[in-house]
Amino acid sequence: MSSFFTDPATLDHHSIDEGNILAPRFDAQGLVTAIAQDATNHRVLMLAFMNAEALRLTIETGIAHYYSRSRGKIWKKGESSGELQRVVELRVDCDQDAILLLVEQQGRGAACHTGRESCFYRIVTNEGGTPALADSGEPRLFDPAEVYKS
Amino acid sequence: MSSFFTDPATLDHHSIDEGNILAPRFDAQGLVTAIAQDATNHRVLMLAFMNAEALRLTIETGIAHYYSRSRGKIWKKGESSGELQRVVELRVDCDQDAILLLVEQQGRGAACHTGRESCFYRIVTNEGGTPALADSGEPRLFDPAEVYKS
Repeated sequence: MSSFFTDPATLDHHSIDEGNILAPRFDAQGLVTAIAQDATNHRVLMLAFMNAEALRLTIETGIAHYYSRSRGKIWKKGESSGELQRVVELRVDCDQDAILLLVEQQGRGAACHTGRESCFYRIVTNEGGTPALADSGEPRLFDPAEVYKS
Repeated sequence: MSSFFTDPATLDHHSIDEGNILAPRFDAQGLVTAIAQDATNHRVLMLAFMNAEALRLTIETGIAHYYSRSRGKIWKKGESSGELQRVVELRVDCDQDAILLLVEQQGRGAACHTGRESCFYRIVTNEGGTPALADSGEPRLFDPAEVYKS
């Protein structure tokens, strides 16, 4: 896997930040952070992680693959739910430890396991100095109990 | 600091995912991931991290505060460059380990330390099966050498 990507240790700081070589800076767990954004309405849908294999699979197939930290394996997003993400464009940030995926959300259009379009469906409030969450009222596009039953 | 936020260990899975209590799931390093998105043009500007103090300061002041892992301290974004971020809305994701900030980028409008609006200014290409980066041509809004000279 490692031969697909340049090792960032072989590049200087300036080349990582400004160059044209993809050299992902995987962390001690072998992961980079990945943000999925809807390519059409520009909503931030979810945040997840990729290891080298997930990033390579995403680049090669044009379908978003992540690494599930809880399950300890590659996670082809939507494989069980049908909510695949077709990658329209892939970007990397300046220091190459984060990936931005511009995607077309397939299936029912729900990136979130709760059945909502976006995982970021709750707004942080701070009434009277006490933080709390307000539901933005985003509808469920599927019933998780139905979709994720064994 | 910890008393400002509910300890997620006191909540069940469903309450974390669907409830109205803010209980950030800080990782082993005490951090959650934070995505800054421009509230007007919806571009994803940058990805950073927050510890409990940075998140509390962000909520209380309405100005984005992060935690600098390299410097090991609170990072009031734009304090040295002038590129502050005014928070229009703060959201949390389903499992409460990621924060989305909708911001008005102040100063010259550059979130990235390279002087560009967004840190995600390079596009991943895969011509002939070899990944590389293409500059999207985003202009520099400031000269980093000028802004960050000590």
